[in-house]
Amino acid sequence: MVGVHELDQATELDIMLTRMQELVIQFIKQGQDEITPVVKYRSPEELYKAMDFHLPLKGTGIEGTFDLVKSTLEYSVNSWNPRFMDKLYAGTNPIGVIAELLLAVLNSNVHVYQVSPVLTLMEISVTKAVASLLDMGENGGGLLCPGGSASNLLALVTARNHLFPSIKSEGYFPRPFNPASAYGKLIVFTSLHSHYSIDKSAQVMGLGTNNIVKVPVDAIGRMKVDELERLIKLSIEKGETPFFINATAGTTVLGAFDPIRAISSIAKRYKCWLHVDGSWGGTAVFSDRVKEEKDWFDGSGLADTFTLNPHKLLGVPLQCSMLVTPHKAHLLFAQANSLKADYLFHGNPYDLGAGTIGCGRRPDAAKVFLAWKFYGQQGLGDRVDKAIETAQRFTNMVRERPHFKLVVDPSPFLQVCFWFIPPKVTVDISHITRELHRRVNQSGEFLVDHAPLRDVPDFFRIVINAPTVHLRDLERLLVAIEEANASIDWETINIT
Amino acid sequence: MVGVHELDQATELDIMLTRMQELVIQFIKQGQDEITPVVKYRSPEELYKAMDFHLPLKGTGIEGTFDLVKSTLEYSVNSWNPRFMDKLYAGTNPIGVIAELLLAVLNSNVHVYQVSPVLTLMEISVTKAVASLLDMGENGGGLLCPGGSASNLLALVTARNHLFPSIKSEGYFPRPFNPASAYGKLIVFTSLHSHYSIDKSAQVMGLGTNNIVKVPVDAIGRMKVDELERLIKLSIEKGETPFFINATAGTTVLGAFDPIRAISSIAKRYKCWLHVDGSWGGTAVFSDRVKEEKDWFDGSGLADTFTLNPHKLLGVPLQCSMLVTPHKAHLLFAQANSLKADYLFHGNPYDLGAGTIGCGRRPDAAKVFLAWKFYGQQGLGDRVDKAIETAQRFTNMVRERPHFKLVVDPSPFLQVCFWFIPPKVTVDISHITRELHRRVNQSGEFLVDHAPLRDVPDFFRIVINAPTVHLRDLERLLVAIEEANASIDWETINIT
Repeated sequence: MVGVHELDQATELDIMLTRMQELVIQFIKQGQDEITPVVKYRSPEELYKAMDFHLPLKGTGIEGTFDLVKSTLEYSVNSWNPRFMDKLYAGTNPIGVIAELLLAVLNSNVHVYQVSPVLTLMEISVTKAVASLLDMGENGGGLLCPGGSASNLLALVTARNHLFPSIKSEGYFPRPFNPASAYGKLIVFTSLHSHYSIDKSAQVMGLGTNNIVKVPVDAIGRMKVDELERLIKLSIEKGETPFFINATAGTTVLGAFDPIRAISSIAKRYKCWLHVDGSWGGTAVFSDRVKEEKDWFDGSGLADTFTLNPHKLLGVPLQCSMLVTPHKAHLLFAQANSLKADYLFHGNPYDLGAGTIGCGRRPDAAKVFLAWKFYGQQGLGDRVDKAIETAQRFTNMVRERPHFKLVVDPSPFLQVCFWFIPPKVTVDISHITRELHRRVNQSGEFLVDHAPLRDVPDFFRIVINAPTVHLRDLERLLVAIEEANASIDWETINIT
Repeated sequence: MVGVHELDQATELDIMLTRMQELVIQFIKQGQDEITPVVKYRSPEELYKAMDFHLPLKGTGIEGTFDLVKSTLEYSVNSWNPRFMDKLYAGTNPIGVIAELLLAVLNSNVHVYQVSPVLTLMEISVTKAVASLLDMGENGGGLLCPGGSASNLLALVTARNHLFPSIKSEGYFPRPFNPASAYGKLIVFTSLHSHYSIDKSAQVMGLGTNNIVKVPVDAIGRMKVDELERLIKLSIEKGETPFFINATAGTTVLGAFDPIRAISSIAKRYKCWLHVDGSWGGTAVFSDRVKEEKDWFDGSGLADTFTLNPHKLLGVPLQCSMLVTPHKAHLLFAQANSLKADYLFHGNPYDLGAGTIGCGRRPDAAKVFLAWKFYGQQGLGDRVDKAIETAQRFTNMVRERPHFKLVVDPSPFLQVCFWFIPPKVTVDISHITRELHRRVNQSGEFLVDHAPLRDVPDFFRIVINAPTVHLRDLERLLVAIEEANASIDWETINIT
């Protein structure tokens, strides 16, 4: 066994990187052949037996660690496999891996410029460039946050502190304690189909989930603007203070894009902050074709803040999320969020940490920066276009196949949502979906998801994202669902 | 130029990893020789000229990207250099790099078990093992969060929602709006020297920074427990509701450990949640010697929540922070934080995301899990012991040297804080510190920090962390400060 402390760090890492490279390349090849399953699924109980999760007193060094690395690869989901269509992220790509390796070696922190000069300028450059794609003008820019939920939380906190600065120091408890405070009860508006991180952020902030008004959506899942206005008026009549509207660019389940320009008019009229949660669909703005042919980003420059997650649609490794704004980003976020922390911040405007909710921060911007340099905006846009085209073709495939029924036709974006409805069966469709889903996933051939939605039975939600996903895989998925159905006698099965 | 789309992903990554390995090993060797500076410092203006931050329409492929990787390494801080002593983190180590590479290749997400089975069990195992080191009993466990500030925020939100469940849905605005609500004005207690993330979290939550009571500290920076009780009583007399006490294990500037057991008695008496922010000092619990010889962790099992950042003292790559609790972790965090998000969470108790503030989450637990397997608890503890010993020796070195004066003697933990006081000089000591600091850092030979503290002039704060830091480097630092001083005529210099 090679000892832990006998080698200098460079030599030790050299040996380990060489071994790791072999494992990594093998893993990717397995992910992209047509035989290997997406995952060798084990329940927690089985997995505790298959692997050693005990944390030892004495180290196991290189050999023990590589045994562990191998079994981690063996029992993990292989997201390089295009048949992983379960979530809104897919596998990454070579430049993604290289970028993470670079960040690992630098082990840097983008709170102050002094310790991360290059990575700070990458963050400033890439958020400015994204803001520019969103037509946010020359003051546009932003900050990276540890995930879409964190970006949405930063947006809400920034909006609240910007509109009601006294809350930062006094909280919701003005001195002297006065129920008829200057602002009253703060209300958030977001669509019925928006992501739950808006609710979570509001509850974190002490606004209360009951003070989030859910605006109805139209037939394809977009916020109804007339309903938004009606509900805002109602709230004002009740003496409340509407202050924040969240529009969604690419909803989580169906993939709908709320009409930003129309919502922006309402926001202006009622002096609300307009945030767009584009965690899923926001990076479609990299595609010039999308900007020409779709209205998804019409009015994007009118938003006050906008969340985008390059770690979803662009294949940048998790986590990579940003919050951009047309209002001078550094000033906006720092004024809303900074506290005097003299030990760390010595007044440098390049010290980006002052505008964040956290303190230390991973340099996630470098990953989207490097992907952009590597593929160009066009290459990233091509990836988006390809996913849209594949989703359209798959939608057609589902429409034409007997017993399959689309939830929304055509699919608004990259999620293809459908039921399989066996003929002459009286069992509840939600139960059928869940049982078929369980069987399809258990084989490991595919990893797909099912989803509920108000008022309709649960359905399959297939996410088209990876550029490697192929129509023959998608056809095979439909066959796998049919095969699972054929193996079940619905009238006698005990559904768990 | 090798084209972007001409190679399959495995081949492309294979080529890039081979090139990357050479650059990485060279970078580490440079970091650990005695000649290369910590950083080739460039101001933002200079750096914009030295590197190309333009984001192109067309991709630059492998060649263009590697030019960029090379210049990123060239102008970044080399944290492998033991003379990087600026912040509470240091460089990582080989297993840290390998762990990040593994996570990059997996590109996984620990929100639900289905997509990250191995990484989920690693998180459960490692948080249980850490809770056990903290004497939290058999129910102990926790969650990883994207940084110490995020862990502290999760602790505050969990405490608030656990103690006052109605706030989750109603916010601080009970229906009907009633100033004499069940809870009143919520007050947080923390020491004068605690980290600003407590303040930031409270402002995010709408508690208001003015409702954070700063408890005085003793001569070496520990919270005064009698003052804590006096201030809580005062708050109750004013009709407020004290609910949260933050004790710090390893303060940011001086490195003091608040007495947990004594604070815990107060917390129990006044029905407050006891949180320990051990972002910096918490992982010293890996050292058996610390647990035997110091009282730092006396009573740690009595805390309700405890933050630790393996990315600081243990050399795990940034970000790696956890919040542990003796109260059944899954139930506690999920009850306090989960919302119904049926599309994602289908009721599996191994779906850890339900207890977090975010949604998707990096599998950061795997990094500390792998470091623990590689080095063992003993190896990680040895690292802590070595840092403590080096800090003690460096403290002695500073004490004995003319014109240097320790801010606290002996240094409570791993920060050695001192002034250089030139004889017969009338200039303000803070100015002297800042000017000497600027000159020492500008050479790139060292990267160290200076810090302010209430009531005393700014001083040097040297953080001992990396196991590679050597006493001769520390002696050389003192000489470099003396040389910088010798080059200045303090009475005539214009200090910026």
